[in-house]
Amino acid sequence: MILGRVTGQIWSSRKLDTMPSAALLEVKTDAGAVIITLDTIGCAVGEKVLVTTGSVAAAQFPDIRAPIDALIIASIDEE
Amino acid sequence: MILGRVTGQIWSSRKLDTMPSAALLEVKTDAGAVIITLDTIGCAVGEKVLVTTGSVAAAQFPDIRAPIDALIIASIDEE
Amino acid sequence: MILGRVTGQIWSSRKLDTMPSAALLEVKTDAGAVIITLDTIGCAVGEKVLVTTGSVAAAQFPDIRAPIDALIIASIDEE
Amino acid sequence: MILGRVTGQIWSSRKLDTMPSAALLEVKTDAGAVIITLDTIGCAVGEKVLVTTGSVAAAQFPDIRAPIDALIIASIDEE
Amino acid sequence: MILGRVTGQIWSSRKLDTMPSAALLEVKTDAGAVIITLDTIGCAVGEKVLVTTGSVAAAQFPDIRAPIDALIIASIDEE
Repeated sequence: MILGRVTGQIWSSRKLDTMPSAALLEVKTDAGAVIITLDTIGCAVGEKVLVTTGSVAAAQFPDIRAPIDALIIASIDEE
Repeated sequence: MILGRVTGQIWSSRKLDTMPSAALLEVKTDAGAVIITLDTIGCAVGEKVLVTTGSVAAAQFPDIRAPIDALIIASIDEE
Repeated sequence: MILGRVTGQIWSSRKLDTMPSAALLEVKTDAGAVIITLDTIGCAVGEKVLVTTGSVAAAQFPDIRAPIDALIIASIDEE
Repeated sequence: MILGRVTGQIWSSRKLDTMPSAALLEVKTDAGAVIITLDTIGCAVGEKVLVTTGSVAAAQFPDIRAPIDALIIASIDEE
Repeated sequence: MILGRVTGQIWSSRKLDTMPSAALLEVKTDAGAVIITLDTIGCAVGEKVLVTTGSVAAAQFPDIRAPIDALIIASIDEE
């Protein structure tokens, strides 16, 4: 998994019907890459998060065949 | 997922029978890479899009076993 | 998917029994990487091709559990 | 698979219910990247480990649909 | 798939029970990366090999749910 920080949110009015209705958050990874992730746990901008990628992200939504390849799976505790 | 912008389209007269008949669009990602994606929502050159990659792209076409690893899943709202 | 050009072929006399009997072609991607792909549509050196990667490549061979992660899915029309 | 060394641990108080309860370890790969991996064999900081990535990591937890894409599968013997 | 050359072997006394008992070989890819692959065809150091990555590697071991993401699938003929 990859560590990163939430840097923003994106919106779309035209998308596949199979997209879950959760927020699409922009995450800047610790390595400097920017990825768009689905967020189902309610993260805010600035929050440190753990992201899983690939088909395991979609597998969290077996009933709707979600076309997502990146999902926030945890908010990281920071001292 | 990855953000990018549609930069063109490619055509093929000789391909696998399992290829969906949708357009094959060239997308330049925000990180500068160029990938070819399938487009089923009708995007135009210049449009900002969200792309999913890997087996979740193919999983949107369960009946035809589509050999695709990149799919446009949303057109992004721009102010 | 990735665009590339066929640059050669490789041969192997010792391989897994689950390997399909199709040609193994060397493809140089537009980004400069070299990958080995399976070719079932009969491409020649110099031809521009579209390559899919990952488990969707193997999924085209459901009966033999092919251990391939890259497959040429189309020959690209060039003007 | 990738070789790396355990460099730390992360904690999360807010995460998906499908996360296994095992430790989340930070691993620095031999190539210099930092990834977060699940550890079910009890590795310590400084230990050399072998990490598998992608859906095969999650497939080790078929009953809980674990959203993980990196798993320590072995501790490496060092002379 | 990726071409590389076998450069060594690694051993582990503590690993997941689902690991196949085949050798774990270090392979340096033609692009210069080092990966650890499972070898079921008996390759030696110095041999040129073809490696498949991702879940298709694990799919060769359906009965044991092997946690591997890289497998040598062929030894390459060299003139």
